[in-house]
Amino acid sequence: MKKYLLLALFGAFLLPSISFQQTLRTIKSPGNISTITVGLNKSGEIFYKISYRGKTAVNWSRLGLTTKGLDLSKGFRLRDATASKHDSSWKPVWGEVDNIRDNYTELEYGLENEAGHRMTLRFKAYDEGVGFRYELPEQPGLQTIQVTDELSEFQMTGDHTAWWIPGDFDSNEHVYSTSAISAIDCTPYNKEHAIFTQHIVKMKNVQTPIAMRAASGLHIALAEAGLADFGALHLETDTENLKFKAFLIPSPDSTIKSTNTLPFHSPWRAVLLSKDAAGILESKLILNLNEPSKIEDPSWIKPQKYVGIWWEMHVGKASWEYLDAEGKPNGRHGATTENTKRYIDFAAKYGFDGVLVEGWNVGWEGWFGQWKDEVFDFAKPYPDYDIDALSRYAREKGVRLIMHHETSSAVTSYERQMDEAYAFMKKHNMNTVKTGYVGKIIPRGEWHDGQWMNNHYLRVAERTAQNKIMVNMHEAVRPSGLHRTWPNWLACEAARGQEFNAWSAGNPPEHECILPFTRILGGPMDYTPGIFEVRMNSYNPEKTEVVHTTVAKQLALYVTLYSPLQMAADLPENYEKRLDVFQFIRDVPVDWSDTRVLNAEIGDYITLARREKGSEDWFLGSITDENPRSFSIKLDFLPAGKTYEATIYSDGKGAHWKDNPYPVDIVKRQVKRGDQFTINLAAGGGCAIAIKQQ
Amino acid sequence: MKKYLLLALFGAFLLPSISFQQTLRTIKSPGNISTITVGLNKSGEIFYKISYRGKTAVNWSRLGLTTKGLDLSKGFRLRDATASKHDSSWKPVWGEVDNIRDNYTELEYGLENEAGHRMTLRFKAYDEGVGFRYELPEQPGLQTIQVTDELSEFQMTGDHTAWWIPGDFDSNEHVYSTSAISAIDCTPYNKEHAIFTQHIVKMKNVQTPIAMRAASGLHIALAEAGLADFGALHLETDTENLKFKAFLIPSPDSTIKSTNTLPFHSPWRAVLLSKDAAGILESKLILNLNEPSKIEDPSWIKPQKYVGIWWEMHVGKASWEYLDAEGKPNGRHGATTENTKRYIDFAAKYGFDGVLVEGWNVGWEGWFGQWKDEVFDFAKPYPDYDIDALSRYAREKGVRLIMHHETSSAVTSYERQMDEAYAFMKKHNMNTVKTGYVGKIIPRGEWHDGQWMNNHYLRVAERTAQNKIMVNMHEAVRPSGLHRTWPNWLACEAARGQEFNAWSAGNPPEHECILPFTRILGGPMDYTPGIFEVRMNSYNPEKTEVVHTTVAKQLALYVTLYSPLQMAADLPENYEKRLDVFQFIRDVPVDWSDTRVLNAEIGDYITLARREKGSEDWFLGSITDENPRSFSIKLDFLPAGKTYEATIYSDGKGAHWKDNPYPVDIVKRQVKRGDQFTINLAAGGGCAIAIKQQ
Repeated sequence: MKKYLLLALFGAFLLPSISFQQTLRTIKSPGNISTITVGLNKSGEIFYKISYRGKTAVNWSRLGLTTKGLDLSKGFRLRDATASKHDSSWKPVWGEVDNIRDNYTELEYGLENEAGHRMTLRFKAYDEGVGFRYELPEQPGLQTIQVTDELSEFQMTGDHTAWWIPGDFDSNEHVYSTSAISAIDCTPYNKEHAIFTQHIVKMKNVQTPIAMRAASGLHIALAEAGLADFGALHLETDTENLKFKAFLIPSPDSTIKSTNTLPFHSPWRAVLLSKDAAGILESKLILNLNEPSKIEDPSWIKPQKYVGIWWEMHVGKASWEYLDAEGKPNGRHGATTENTKRYIDFAAKYGFDGVLVEGWNVGWEGWFGQWKDEVFDFAKPYPDYDIDALSRYAREKGVRLIMHHETSSAVTSYERQMDEAYAFMKKHNMNTVKTGYVGKIIPRGEWHDGQWMNNHYLRVAERTAQNKIMVNMHEAVRPSGLHRTWPNWLACEAARGQEFNAWSAGNPPEHECILPFTRILGGPMDYTPGIFEVRMNSYNPEKTEVVHTTVAKQLALYVTLYSPLQMAADLPENYEKRLDVFQFIRDVPVDWSDTRVLNAEIGDYITLARREKGSEDWFLGSITDENPRSFSIKLDFLPAGKTYEATIYSDGKGAHWKDNPYPVDIVKRQVKRGDQFTINLAAGGGCAIAIKQQ
Repeated sequence: MKKYLLLALFGAFLLPSISFQQTLRTIKSPGNISTITVGLNKSGEIFYKISYRGKTAVNWSRLGLTTKGLDLSKGFRLRDATASKHDSSWKPVWGEVDNIRDNYTELEYGLENEAGHRMTLRFKAYDEGVGFRYELPEQPGLQTIQVTDELSEFQMTGDHTAWWIPGDFDSNEHVYSTSAISAIDCTPYNKEHAIFTQHIVKMKNVQTPIAMRAASGLHIALAEAGLADFGALHLETDTENLKFKAFLIPSPDSTIKSTNTLPFHSPWRAVLLSKDAAGILESKLILNLNEPSKIEDPSWIKPQKYVGIWWEMHVGKASWEYLDAEGKPNGRHGATTENTKRYIDFAAKYGFDGVLVEGWNVGWEGWFGQWKDEVFDFAKPYPDYDIDALSRYAREKGVRLIMHHETSSAVTSYERQMDEAYAFMKKHNMNTVKTGYVGKIIPRGEWHDGQWMNNHYLRVAERTAQNKIMVNMHEAVRPSGLHRTWPNWLACEAARGQEFNAWSAGNPPEHECILPFTRILGGPMDYTPGIFEVRMNSYNPEKTEVVHTTVAKQLALYVTLYSPLQMAADLPENYEKRLDVFQFIRDVPVDWSDTRVLNAEIGDYITLARREKGSEDWFLGSITDENPRSFSIKLDFLPAGKTYEATIYSDGKGAHWKDNPYPVDIVKRQVKRGDQFTINLAAGGGCAIAIKQQ
């Protein structure tokens, strides 16, 4: 009978045997909520299983690595297994909360094969999910491995609803799909230049993090943490057996995914588990799996709000490049001395920290899509951009210019210039850089998500940190919590951002209701919210693009899309037309001591309340997809006995993302702990509330 | 009748037509020796033909490029054609002669296609051969091209004897084959790790330069000059039609060979022509096709002789690495403070300029063949190597340490460290670096001979020049005359060097009789001659390897294998046992004002006389393959009326590379202009003569 049960559990691939039962080890999370069981079958292959609140969340799934000349997926015996308990807490330099508890049970599952090669599986069981990774300790006769495959599987227990984007080697800038696991199919995404630089090879491969909801209500997100010296983790979907298998972005020699030196450990594979969507948003699992900060004195790292010369290029009012096709000034250049002064004045007047200026340096003429090397010079401004005068002017005004380094993905060229480029920044009093990786990578054959590039991003994080520079990477790999280790790495784009609304079919209203459950699980996104002029025909009557939002929702995004770096992305003139609405953007902070999820469903709606760091003020953001919604909000997060003034920015009467995006009602009311009221969100709308202590 | 003739000339591929005849242009070299004819056929395809001394040398052959989205091989009309004559001379910073005449007729053959795209073919006709290249001027609507193929053909007129190595993407370190064109087949070379890092894709592809001899006695070498920003030129052999076609080493995206920005020109394609083998050796065509020196003040560039800690590793007496597999000092490390002092003493005592030290820096443990990134630190010596003390000691002794940078082909890692590495050198009074590119390239997917790497080598040449550092590259692409432009780029390996004799089947006796007609046409080789202890069993009774040479031949190589950087490669103790023989190595210079080819046949023998720069002393070297030879030498190159003492180092009685390599007879005699005597070369032997003015 026992035999029969085991067979049922393991299917055909695993023969039950004494040896299997002898190798089984189980750990439970501190609150007995998550359980991990690991074992070896008769062939010495490794399997694991995860239960959550007594039910299987990930059924028996295989583990292992294959490397060139050395198979680390079978023939193992259990050498030793050690379980231990850990409980500590740490304070992030910035974040959604000011204190994070790291409470887990660990299992070190040490293996050895017949040739004496050793590998350890390290598991961490948290109440909120599970992490595991592969470790190869130093050992005689094995110095380097060339990883050809990772066998890690995630056997789902049903045909869950999944929110996913394709396993693209080069981009994360896709619209999310919502489908059953069995229906995952990237074919519709695989059109040339749907995203300019995309590379989708396998039609059932998805990017991590992927979010899922089981019929039981169990919510699961599969992700990775601490991506370093390895290809990014994508997942191959077995749509028949409802199973995911690790797929590592390869090197140009596609048979090799990664080359690693011992001692080696893989990034963490993370399984976030929750009984509801809110729990996924609240999870600190990915951060906890990352290494502590390597920056000893982080006092120079400052969360920031910024404006910049950027959206005017996207809407077609200005250009990045200075010259026209005949080599003459085109008269449309955005990054001029005069225009930059205008932004500096605006930033100073309304209390922004920084002014991003794109298109300031030579090289923008005709580079796009050409896969050229040596495109940009990162210390050579265009002749109409007086950087000396501007950096002085910004300093006088108490504002910092934010540097822009579009690498054009000529990354080796950028690496050769990094030292000079950062010295040039420091000389001009800049301490934040936005990097860009538009186009196909040089080294040619490398991918945005491959090992070489992942090492590059970390080199940039480290090199900027050495120079006390904060960094915001666009078109880089999606984050995996490394901002814990390098808190100067403020944000990434690594998803479909606001800009798509200016010149493409754009982002559907549900988009920002999916991002926090997927892409943003790994780290902050520089989404660039705050567009007030949402219709592109206001710039050009021939344009039909719109931002799929109401203006009130744009405000709410500053709360719901967490980032320590937030842009007020619209043009100064658009803000100055609606200073009453703009006031919320001026008020909302970018660093928090506490965060509460008031309600959330993936792809439908999110309502968060957050407390400003070093303050008693709270800010609430609520957003919805294409459906209008009403929520009853109870202010039980406020401390008792204090009075607040709430400024409520709601969708105005008749507001609708498509037909009537502009109306915003602004109401002030006195509130206190326990107060309850209803907020109404228009279709594609939102609500933002500033709750300030009086 | 005329029609019939044209048909015969062009074969089936080109229909004669009025338009063809109208586009035909011919130039002749200044001495009427070489003739180039170019024309377009009815389809606007480009063809050319080369005659030499009235006979066809390269029959009608196609030209053209294909690029992604733009075919630059047909549909052309002749826009303009301009012929011009040029005659000048220039003085190389160092070389085989001290003055080079650059005398040619040029044809600029300007083309335009229906879309208005312009391309120019530039031809130069020299008495000693022909060069041509593709040029794309700046033009509207075309900023960047991605070259997918170069169509350049070389239609031979018969089944010539060819000396060739395979068209390997990653290595030139092959034994030469001698075969008819029709018999070219790389299959026997294509064994895994025959050369450790090799990549042979097409079995009829050969490397350039390739040397050929026609039945008529015409000698032809096909080569390239000025390789920059392009994949190296290999040749696809059409063994049936006796035709070669250009094959460019691809980028990792193998459909793209090269990405280039306009204005663009390809490297030169060079056809060296001569009625005898000597003329090929004397040709300055490749140098003349290169750009003049970019180093304004080259006074710091010095040809050098050096010794070093290198051969003792190859023969197994010492190790590059410091630690054993258990992480403890292995006791065999070559680059110790003490050992280096011994070499410095030796160099100072016997008049050498430099001491190369390999294995001095951390990283040598277990990197080989692992394709690892971040292997070496170029500013971190092993603990048993006191670089501060040694650089002081060397300075006191009037000797320079020569830096060694083995990049392990982790080239992006090297590029990130270059600035620091060169500063470290300067700090330690070093001004020469030997770089190495052992192993597969990182950026992964790139090849040693591809565009990215060719740009890298040039970056190193330029960056070292900026730092007044001379460079000697090993495992880099074979030279194409770029040392004219960057005379600090003293030498390359880029062929099968001496080291193979220490641990492999080695280099056959004919090897050094082929190199000057092939590899060395493009530039100096750091072959590392001067091995006196030629039998490896003297180091280890179990070893059977031998250098396929007599000791006298090792001396002659300093004359016959031209390089401004020559190593005395053997161990000091071996030289000190035979100081009488060693005297020639001490005496022979590395820079020349004149060179005479006394006799030569490819693969058989070479006898050269050279005059030392700034001196009236002459040095003669004569080498043979596996056959013994006697040559009558007439000293008609000496000036009249002066007396010289000749020291003649000949193979001693019974000498034979295999059975009796050691005997050297040393004879001194008074000589003067017009004297004639016989030298006898043993099988695999040679003769070296120092002729000093008295």
